[in-house]
Amino acid sequence: MDNSSSRIVDAIRQWIDTAAPGARLPSTRQLVAEHAASPVTVQKALRTLAAAGLVESRPGVGTFVRATRSARPQDHGWQTAALGAPRSSLPRVAGALRTAPDDAQALHSGYPEPGLLPERLVRAALVRAARGTAATARPPATGLHELRAWFAAEVAAATPAHLSGPGAHDVVVVPGSQSGLTSVFRALVAPGQPLLMESPTYWGAILAAHQAGARPVPVASDSEGPDPDQLDRALRETGARALYVQPSYANPTGVQWSPDRAATVLDVVRGHGAFLVEDDWAHDFAIDTDPLPVATQDDSGHVVYLRSLTKSMSPTIRVGAVLARGPVLERLVADRSAESLYVSGLLQHAALEVLSDPGWRSHLRRLRGQLRERRDLLAAGLREHAPSLHVDLVPAGGLHLWARLPDGTDPEQVVRDCESGGVWVTAGHEWFPTEPSGPYLRLNFSGPDPGGFPSAARTVEEALRRQG
Amino acid sequence: MDNSSSRIVDAIRQWIDTAAPGARLPSTRQLVAEHAASPVTVQKALRTLAAAGLVESRPGVGTFVRATRSARPQDHGWQTAALGAPRSSLPRVAGALRTAPDDAQALHSGYPEPGLLPERLVRAALVRAARGTAATARPPATGLHELRAWFAAEVAAATPAHLSGPGAHDVVVVPGSQSGLTSVFRALVAPGQPLLMESPTYWGAILAAHQAGARPVPVASDSEGPDPDQLDRALRETGARALYVQPSYANPTGVQWSPDRAATVLDVVRGHGAFLVEDDWAHDFAIDTDPLPVATQDDSGHVVYLRSLTKSMSPTIRVGAVLARGPVLERLVADRSAESLYVSGLLQHAALEVLSDPGWRSHLRRLRGQLRERRDLLAAGLREHAPSLHVDLVPAGGLHLWARLPDGTDPEQVVRDCESGGVWVTAGHEWFPTEPSGPYLRLNFSGPDPGGFPSAARTVEEALRRQG
Repeated sequence: MDNSSSRIVDAIRQWIDTAAPGARLPSTRQLVAEHAASPVTVQKALRTLAAAGLVESRPGVGTFVRATRSARPQDHGWQTAALGAPRSSLPRVAGALRTAPDDAQALHSGYPEPGLLPERLVRAALVRAARGTAATARPPATGLHELRAWFAAEVAAATPAHLSGPGAHDVVVVPGSQSGLTSVFRALVAPGQPLLMESPTYWGAILAAHQAGARPVPVASDSEGPDPDQLDRALRETGARALYVQPSYANPTGVQWSPDRAATVLDVVRGHGAFLVEDDWAHDFAIDTDPLPVATQDDSGHVVYLRSLTKSMSPTIRVGAVLARGPVLERLVADRSAESLYVSGLLQHAALEVLSDPGWRSHLRRLRGQLRERRDLLAAGLREHAPSLHVDLVPAGGLHLWARLPDGTDPEQVVRDCESGGVWVTAGHEWFPTEPSGPYLRLNFSGPDPGGFPSAARTVEEALRRQG
Repeated sequence: MDNSSSRIVDAIRQWIDTAAPGARLPSTRQLVAEHAASPVTVQKALRTLAAAGLVESRPGVGTFVRATRSARPQDHGWQTAALGAPRSSLPRVAGALRTAPDDAQALHSGYPEPGLLPERLVRAALVRAARGTAATARPPATGLHELRAWFAAEVAAATPAHLSGPGAHDVVVVPGSQSGLTSVFRALVAPGQPLLMESPTYWGAILAAHQAGARPVPVASDSEGPDPDQLDRALRETGARALYVQPSYANPTGVQWSPDRAATVLDVVRGHGAFLVEDDWAHDFAIDTDPLPVATQDDSGHVVYLRSLTKSMSPTIRVGAVLARGPVLERLVADRSAESLYVSGLLQHAALEVLSDPGWRSHLRRLRGQLRERRDLLAAGLREHAPSLHVDLVPAGGLHLWARLPDGTDPEQVVRDCESGGVWVTAGHEWFPTEPSGPYLRLNFSGPDPGGFPSAARTVEEALRRQG
């Protein structure tokens, strides 16, 4: 839908909500005047509403709110027995996915605000892709060859000379990293079996683990990465075959593994004949350092590497990749085929267009500075205006600060109190695969209106004081 | 990628395959002449190849095939123990998904040829959607409200007055029907539990059932639908809670259920407190009759209804919907969120654009005639030139003929013999959830080059005679 037509649809829909069934809509002429739109745009909005069954037009008479049937409430109680217990108790939809009102200070989201995305580049790429013949064809189940090659080349370029880098044939394109995670977990972990995860870690990965029927087992991390001794013990005691990690700018803690720690962790994983699932979610969100994927240090097939473009390119480009070497890739491809056959060719072609455009690299360079500025602004704001919060680490990349609350704080209450003050934050316990190790908030510094960070910090402090 | 640049990439990639590492590519001027393309297009192709790690350019010198490292073969044998047995023995990728060479007579595919799709409409909609602001935003997990309303309204419009029709809130948008099927099966059938399926039935549904860990149990059907007595017995004996069916123009048999049979089957399913999963895959491929979804006859929440736009609109529009009423919808939404969070907004907006365009309805009217003509041409060709084949039913809709081979025929051998004669067909056993009831071929009449149908029929007959 173009904007203006979509806007009119929304306005009329709101009007319908309060109108009686059978009520007559304002005339096209009135709507044209009211919305300062062309008759073509108004007609289009009316067609959309008719297609949605909300209005019906009687030619020569007018357009009317569709008379709805008397909606007697249905009793669907019989389903309770038929459905039985769910396969896994999936957590509720995450706080990070809630949509904040336009005038709120949104620090809760997991995405950068649109102003930090290469919108113009993405739109142009989508338009070009839509005009090419290849974009409407069905691509191979594993993805477009060039796109697979791009993902492989990114890792291969950073692979040291004594190791053999991955190739296009080691990559399967997936419709976003969430789908990649569920497939990887289904491929690696049998139902009911353990899956080691850093703790805290990304809520989407915890969700995917439950979805795949895996049993999340937390492994503690410090400021350099997972504790190798604890990892060794956990692998031995649980017999787990896989460890899920975010070695660069982990979500939520912001930790970047030290090279030494990465090497030790990889050795421990190898020693147990296990897989390391590396979710390189913030590869494009580096600020002070550069990410060096653990996948570049491995050609033995122990690292399964996930990379997504959704967060850094556009929420509409649901395109990512899993890089895996050896028989595990075949199992992954079989899972992806059964799950969704293939990924939309248009989105793959558009992603490739953006990646091949020189503007993409210059966008990422610019983004680095923008993220630095916002991170420092939020960190300074918290230091100055929210002394009850404790931020252990100002991360060298990523999108968030991870802030410890005073012991005994109820983070849910803080979230509600902040929200009534117009500031949206997320409670930290969604990032813990088991019981939280303490009360935390996660605060996104890549949201809109960085000028409001200091005032948002004051709101958080007030909410904390209300509890203290 | 635009076409010409993509074409040049392909050509150079083929050249690289035979070239030595470090070899120098022809100059831009030579490539411009060779491919009759502009320097900009050639430069773009070279950038794509560089991004894929296949070439490297040395400014002022030229572009060279990237010297690949000595690729010592890796031993990934350790993975065999780590991976263990797969969750389910997923069938290999289907014959229907193979890509035939351009000069083959392709009767094997499950998709209509591009000439039968509203290409112009889809491209225009994609371009419009790409330019609107909403298309790059993250849509709700359940899908765009208008799109959900459209899917609900289609069913509600055919719902009789004494039943209450579905609304937008009963719909979740999914990225294609394959994803819808896996989610529905995961939501309805616990791992290892039985799932009743018509036999033969769609291979993708069989694949999805295995993926979801369900145990497919076949139910025989005749020319009016599933046998109610057998269904009743199967539900009682297995304790199954779900039956998967395609009541309109079933793939592969082409059967359309009679209204009486539909009512009886629905009664039996209701009597057992079970779900009927209706896959309305061919809703847009009606020829002689109109499809009347079983979902229109139910407001008790027993029918879970799937509808996809991928096959009739464009392979690139990975958009479909599941309509389900009652608590089952909540379980479906939780599964979809865990599996992929949301469906690309661009694809949803583009789908809505096409559906709201008057050209969509006129396209479907035109398509009806085109499918009729091709169906009759292939049926006549088989009658005249392939008397060893037996086509029981010329279907009133859909895309395929289902042809019985003489007893004792090896359908795989027929497929191979046809293929060496330039005719691609698919062996029928992929459509049976358990052992096939006999040797069959599925023949797509919506592929390219209908003028070649008579000669294709002769090729099939020759392949059969070679076995006889």
